[in-house]
Amino acid sequence: MSEGETKPDPAPRPHVVIVGAGFGGLEVARGLAKAPVDVTLIDRHNYHCFQPLLYQVATATLSPADIAWPIRHILSRQPNITMLMAQAEGVDRTRRELLTSEGPIRYDVLVLATGATHSYFGHPEWARFAPGLKDIEDATQLRRRILLAFERAEVTSSPEIRRRLLTFAIIGGGPTGVELAGSIAEIARHALAPDFKRVDPRTARILLIEAGPRLLPALPERLSEHARERLEAMGVEVLTGRPVIDMGVDHVTLEGGESLPVATKIWAAGVRASPAADWLGVAADRAGRCHVEADLSLPGEPDIFVIGDTAAVSQADGRPVPGIAPAAKQMGDHVAEVIRARLSGGQAPGFRYRHAGDLATIGRNAAVVKLGRLELTGFLGWMFWGIVHVYFLVGARNRLTVALSWLWNYLTYQRAARLITGDVVPARSPAPAPQEPRPPA
Amino acid sequence: MSEGETKPDPAPRPHVVIVGAGFGGLEVARGLAKAPVDVTLIDRHNYHCFQPLLYQVATATLSPADIAWPIRHILSRQPNITMLMAQAEGVDRTRRELLTSEGPIRYDVLVLATGATHSYFGHPEWARFAPGLKDIEDATQLRRRILLAFERAEVTSSPEIRRRLLTFAIIGGGPTGVELAGSIAEIARHALAPDFKRVDPRTARILLIEAGPRLLPALPERLSEHARERLEAMGVEVLTGRPVIDMGVDHVTLEGGESLPVATKIWAAGVRASPAADWLGVAADRAGRCHVEADLSLPGEPDIFVIGDTAAVSQADGRPVPGIAPAAKQMGDHVAEVIRARLSGGQAPGFRYRHAGDLATIGRNAAVVKLGRLELTGFLGWMFWGIVHVYFLVGARNRLTVALSWLWNYLTYQRAARLITGDVVPARSPAPAPQEPRPPA
Repeated sequence: MSEGETKPDPAPRPHVVIVGAGFGGLEVARGLAKAPVDVTLIDRHNYHCFQPLLYQVATATLSPADIAWPIRHILSRQPNITMLMAQAEGVDRTRRELLTSEGPIRYDVLVLATGATHSYFGHPEWARFAPGLKDIEDATQLRRRILLAFERAEVTSSPEIRRRLLTFAIIGGGPTGVELAGSIAEIARHALAPDFKRVDPRTARILLIEAGPRLLPALPERLSEHARERLEAMGVEVLTGRPVIDMGVDHVTLEGGESLPVATKIWAAGVRASPAADWLGVAADRAGRCHVEADLSLPGEPDIFVIGDTAAVSQADGRPVPGIAPAAKQMGDHVAEVIRARLSGGQAPGFRYRHAGDLATIGRNAAVVKLGRLELTGFLGWMFWGIVHVYFLVGARNRLTVALSWLWNYLTYQRAARLITGDVVPARSPAPAPQEPRPPA
Repeated sequence: MSEGETKPDPAPRPHVVIVGAGFGGLEVARGLAKAPVDVTLIDRHNYHCFQPLLYQVATATLSPADIAWPIRHILSRQPNITMLMAQAEGVDRTRRELLTSEGPIRYDVLVLATGATHSYFGHPEWARFAPGLKDIEDATQLRRRILLAFERAEVTSSPEIRRRLLTFAIIGGGPTGVELAGSIAEIARHALAPDFKRVDPRTARILLIEAGPRLLPALPERLSEHARERLEAMGVEVLTGRPVIDMGVDHVTLEGGESLPVATKIWAAGVRASPAADWLGVAADRAGRCHVEADLSLPGEPDIFVIGDTAAVSQADGRPVPGIAPAAKQMGDHVAEVIRARLSGGQAPGFRYRHAGDLATIGRNAAVVKLGRLELTGFLGWMFWGIVHVYFLVGARNRLTVALSWLWNYLTYQRAARLITGDVVPARSPAPAPQEPRPPA
């Protein structure tokens, strides 16, 4: 590891700069707790967000603070770390500086763990019609869109507009898409149903649209089929093998030309790596990910590491390492090990991904889990899913709050965070209908 | 009560339109649960917000969902009520229509309970420097400003800028100002102190600026003095008799010309009624409130009621009814009684305000309470304050969540909702200081 030549510090220790406090970046920082380095962790948010539960913020079960925790607080007992809230903007490899919204920061070792964003497959204009779900802001925006659709349906007098407002399309049949579809179906059928007088939220149409042949492709076919059956029993229409070819403010068009009137569209179909490859001036794969060496460093640049959703890493069998939290954590752990080994003059073995399993929740008492040879569904799978997620949350308080929220939700069918925040005034709809009664249920 | 002449309903019932689902409006709706009327409740939000605890959202103790509850859900068991999310924009008294963002709505009886907003005493340009605290959006914006100030102080290398970023001014020494000042002092000295490496949040300067001669003018002088002493012991600088005459992005100027460098300013000084008087085309008092008859109806217009912070109502001794939650609730209750009495051919007595007491919390184990002749301070006052506020929250779940949050906060000194949301990228500060250590404490 090289050190800055002009560093005036009387006891020079290498400066490790980590960009991104997601699962990967946080793990690097933790792994360097006792190493003789100074660490600076940079994130554009002041919190670490537990992304696997974002969909529960979007569907009004949890509050943002339940799944987010101040980064400073997580690392407050680690004396060798400084956290800075800033936006990364580039890397000057010659001067060994990270460029940020707050100015340049010199590094001896740089770790880029900047995650991924949505990919609209060459249709960036779809982003405004179908927002995705990557951070807290996305989640509260989605919550607003979902809840506002019901509010607007209650106001309008046009049956056609009401139908469209009560139609939701989730595009992408991976775990996020499945979890969102199930959760929206539940909120419409249970939490909202008794509270509306003119429209019946139970008539909401929820479409789960997947381009590929089946839901949850990472899981065995049997579990995909189970997920589809459970979703359909909950009233979700599952459309597989139906790529979206166009969309607008009030419709989605599927391959073959069928156009569906849909007010609320949610994107859960594809991700693209953060622009780390651009910052570094290196080639990227089709998903924008950087190629890395076996130790996760950049080819020819051993002091720069790229991990998590921003790195293209293969498993032993040649398949890519999936973009899930455990993979990012393992990479973060590995990079900390490589840095520690180098400091003590040794060498760490190459990164090897250990896949623990795949799981997705569908709804009340329903989830699909595959752990090695073990397959769980139904109540058992659902309990397992819940316990795993509570266990991996940061902080005793969040674990308690989330567990209590789920218990309350389970017992009452209610959602605790049904708040429409953000742009709060609904758009003017064509005609109000103050006297229109709700048809008898 | 007159009825719409052209109403085609086979069993015409008077249509009561209530604008605003705050403490007053909600009470009217509840009071008409069993009355032979159709009620439409209109609010620009989908939730009822418990304003007395907004400052705890602004200071990261509670999440928005802890103090807000979907209006629909509160009223879901009341079959004669429809809730519409819309923004009121005017009243057409001739056509008996409320004008809203969703179009006009015909009324037989109209109740305006639209509350108050901030008053900057002829300086509307101060609003962007010193936001106030009236709704959930205000609270999350304030939370962002307060937490970002510490984050930016951690980044800057200029001692002058750092000093300014660590200075907070709360303008207005009523209950909200006192509660905010105490809570910011606590967050700086306890929750944040261990988490910052370069700045010491305990050195934050918190100014509570009041134009009048003392804090909490509604309370006896002894309690005002007690509040001042407790705040000063917590490190708050209390400046009474010091009107603000100017402010900008980085300063506050007091009468006499003293200019204080302050990055974060919060307005808790004055309120102005919502524009109900403008909508009605009637004269208003200096604070924008409508004059009303003894039954809270508009002079000469018995089918329009104005209540809460929008109405100018006097107590028996001539003093104005204070702008607090119990007063709004009593007015709402009264209007429901007047409407019910008229429907049964009777007449309700004039409104008479019953003042239960005044209270404000200062911080941990510290509050001031006056109930009739009873005066409480310290731990007793603080417990009383907490129990009263939990009791008046809507819904068992919010009561439980808030009580648990307070318990956790009390035991750990932590704040659960330290999230910076909204515009998340900090402004570019003049120079970064990545190697600058925090001076020894």
